[in-house]
Amino acid sequence: MSMYRKVLVAVDLSDESEQVLRAAAEIAAANEAEILILHVTDNPVTLYSQWSDYVVPYSEDKIRELLFSKLADLVESLGLNKSLITIDFGRAIDLIVDKADKEECDLIVVGSHGRHGVKLLLGSTANGVLHHASCDVLAIRVRETIE
Amino acid sequence: MSMYRKVLVAVDLSDESEQVLRAAAEIAAANEAEILILHVTDNPVTLYSQWSDYVVPYSEDKIRELLFSKLADLVESLGLNKSLITIDFGRAIDLIVDKADKEECDLIVVGSHGRHGVKLLLGSTANGVLHHASCDVLAIRVRETIE
Repeated sequence: MSMYRKVLVAVDLSDESEQVLRAAAEIAAANEAEILILHVTDNPVTLYSQWSDYVVPYSEDKIRELLFSKLADLVESLGLNKSLITIDFGRAIDLIVDKADKEECDLIVVGSHGRHGVKLLLGSTANGVLHHASCDVLAIRVRETIE
Repeated sequence: MSMYRKVLVAVDLSDESEQVLRAAAEIAAANEAEILILHVTDNPVTLYSQWSDYVVPYSEDKIRELLFSKLADLVESLGLNKSLITIDFGRAIDLIVDKADKEECDLIVVGSHGRHGVKLLLGSTANGVLHHASCDVLAIRVRETIE
């Protein structure tokens, strides 16, 4: 199968990200396609140090580094290269669609929760991406590890 | 790749149906998966004889036969068996999701139009299926033949 040449997978670092990333990696491999891994954080200033007695906001660079490091572990555990990762700040739908357009991706892979899912944000991201993308979109129905 | 075992593809008999069906057939082949082809018509009583001086409503059976025959030509032109086709009457989103559940499909393939698409119905079907399906959903971004 070589339907796709360049796959963008968007992961949110929830417990279910591995399912989405694994599916995207499998599709990319089957298509001999390039893969790009994107994590978008809405509002980086809401992330604080967990190890401080006071609430100390991290700099964007520090947050990027922390998120990259967390995602890199997951990415490498699936045999992918961490250089494929991009961390971005802003509205997930816009940044996912923009990156796919800019990089000329022909498939976007996103996670999606079922009708009983509690993570409505992820559901709305999948819907928004589907609505705005100019390429194919595969929504992976993740099995929730915590209800 | 064997991510999927049973693929349901929903086609609307627009000029773009071939793109959706072709993509689904390719994915099914790559996964050595079974494929089911579903066409849903919202309101069969709005279909009338084009060859009569009067407006003569067809019976549901006749409509089913006409739609089947049109879809069979397309299906066979792609090397698939027409016995895979189901024609159903009702609300597309519900019937697509129900069939996928009943048949235990693990992937639904639907067509989806871009933000500039005029066929909003298809867009809303893709969105609704994404929201309600209990399996993965692949939305094929069809290139419109008529704007």
